[in-house]
Amino acid sequence: MEETRQWRLASRPVGEPSRDDFELVTVDRPEPGPGEVLVKTLYQSVDPYMRGRMRDAESYAEPWDVGDPMQAGIVGQVVESNHDEFEAGDVVTGTLLWAEHAVADGDELRPVDPDRGPVSTALGVLGMPGVTAYFGMLDVADPTPGDTVVVSAAAGAVGSVAGQLARLNGARVVGTAGSDAKVEWLTDELGFDAAVNYETEDLSAAMAEACPDGIDGYFDNVGGPITDAVWPLLNVRSRVAVCGQISLYNATEVPTGPRKLGKLVESRARVEGFLVSDYDGRWGEALDRLSTFVREDEIRYRETAVEGFENAPDAFLGLFEGENVGKQLVQVAEYES
Amino acid sequence: MEETRQWRLASRPVGEPSRDDFELVTVDRPEPGPGEVLVKTLYQSVDPYMRGRMRDAESYAEPWDVGDPMQAGIVGQVVESNHDEFEAGDVVTGTLLWAEHAVADGDELRPVDPDRGPVSTALGVLGMPGVTAYFGMLDVADPTPGDTVVVSAAAGAVGSVAGQLARLNGARVVGTAGSDAKVEWLTDELGFDAAVNYETEDLSAAMAEACPDGIDGYFDNVGGPITDAVWPLLNVRSRVAVCGQISLYNATEVPTGPRKLGKLVESRARVEGFLVSDYDGRWGEALDRLSTFVREDEIRYRETAVEGFENAPDAFLGLFEGENVGKQLVQVAEYES
Repeated sequence: MEETRQWRLASRPVGEPSRDDFELVTVDRPEPGPGEVLVKTLYQSVDPYMRGRMRDAESYAEPWDVGDPMQAGIVGQVVESNHDEFEAGDVVTGTLLWAEHAVADGDELRPVDPDRGPVSTALGVLGMPGVTAYFGMLDVADPTPGDTVVVSAAAGAVGSVAGQLARLNGARVVGTAGSDAKVEWLTDELGFDAAVNYETEDLSAAMAEACPDGIDGYFDNVGGPITDAVWPLLNVRSRVAVCGQISLYNATEVPTGPRKLGKLVESRARVEGFLVSDYDGRWGEALDRLSTFVREDEIRYRETAVEGFENAPDAFLGLFEGENVGKQLVQVAEYES
Repeated sequence: MEETRQWRLASRPVGEPSRDDFELVTVDRPEPGPGEVLVKTLYQSVDPYMRGRMRDAESYAEPWDVGDPMQAGIVGQVVESNHDEFEAGDVVTGTLLWAEHAVADGDELRPVDPDRGPVSTALGVLGMPGVTAYFGMLDVADPTPGDTVVVSAAAGAVGSVAGQLARLNGARVVGTAGSDAKVEWLTDELGFDAAVNYETEDLSAAMAEACPDGIDGYFDNVGGPITDAVWPLLNVRSRVAVCGQISLYNATEVPTGPRKLGKLVESRARVEGFLVSDYDGRWGEALDRLSTFVREDEIRYRETAVEGFENAPDAFLGLFEGENVGKQLVQVAEYES
């Protein structure tokens, strides 16, 4: 019987996760049952929200059990199909496993057209991160021409798309990022009006300088001190879309910070969390728009790929160090057309 | 020339205000110019938001200048009128001064019908606090049957009306208050399903017990530890209406507390500040509904009146000690029909 490899959760991290929390195991390659498809992984996604699934606490995503394989967004190629819509060689995407091969219900997979661009984009700008940016920015932060919109983690997979969407809606866009190279990418390539390096700049001063007319929309992936710097600048009737809070995910105690609700009375601001899963029925709309924007060079993207399945945990851990520019991927195998 | 008395801001308080921050002065009674009305104060309102106007900081309400008279909601009787709509003896309400007599533009006054109930209600259940509760609860917190709604400072002028409106909308209503007498009033008289004494109970445990199905709506007048206890219980798609944050108004440094934005992602909760002044065009709608509810005994109210104009600062300072049940007023003169 053929074999394959999987990453399993070896232990629940306390605070910062480490490589020891992951275990690489070799198992029998699974066989697809009726309606199922065997998929060979080409690219595996790692995402900040996965940190939450390592906890033993209920949240919007079910916690992983210690000893079990972990889930991930995958772009892969069909090896064997018992589903009418797919045949061997097709490129598909879906939520599978941190694994070189996995079996999925064919109904849970979406086809990826390799002629429309790099197949890896189905995990980034034309996948969950892009769709997250799309609905979070357009439905929740809701920028209009002349608005100032701030995006935290703006050089990440979600933030880079969110900021460009705000720009396309006529807003002045300010991003935060953790290196000068990222700041340059945002302003020189993606059309951000300004960007703040949160590692080297005084956040409050830099934010005030970058947003002389205050802030009308804030798309927050980070939380913590960046959000503290944004808060005093919120304008009347501003909107805060809370997408993620990566600065808090590794905390072992509930972090504290300046109390924020008083400012909302004065500004009548609206702060709203959202999950891309609430928009399941509207992915088509988002992907149509996003792929048009990418084709027309209105939205640009980058991917940071770690090569080799054995390095998947490093790719994940790197997210918390801000090592990725754009979408962080693990390249597991080459696409064979 | 006849005289009258005014309270002026003597100094800007740092932290908790004291009586020394107020100065009682005797001045010439003003005379109404064209279109103006001289009003004799019957009741003066004191409200938590006034603490903000004592600061030298721009906010939604303009700061008071040291040495100047302060503004307040007033119910008074017309002494002399140069305005077509009013004549001597009429009862009126509007924003005038902390003063025994003041002059107002007649266009800025609203008539009060003394046959419809105690005229003082124009400063409470049928005035700014009632209208604040009305729009904050119905427009922002938006309770529906079966929801659990929490109201902080539930025995106050705004909270008591807000909670009863939620009850009338079919919600299970839980209040917080600072004494057993207030707790009893909420549950025995106002129809709250439960109430928590924040002075004597363990807030988190009591809140969890009072809200076994979580919290769908939160009308917040207080902030701080009460809000901390509410937060972990917020249900998916819950709404937080931020009306005030009295626990923070006397702070000399930005208070800190547990960071709150992460919970919003998981719960997709919406947190929104509001100001009653944004509903200026819709007071009629609110007052019609509220006065009907009061007449039909569906909404009950209490007032706490301090007697004597010279005691106005004490009435104001008492707000921060939780001394009032329902609307805190200063009774300045008797209504003469």
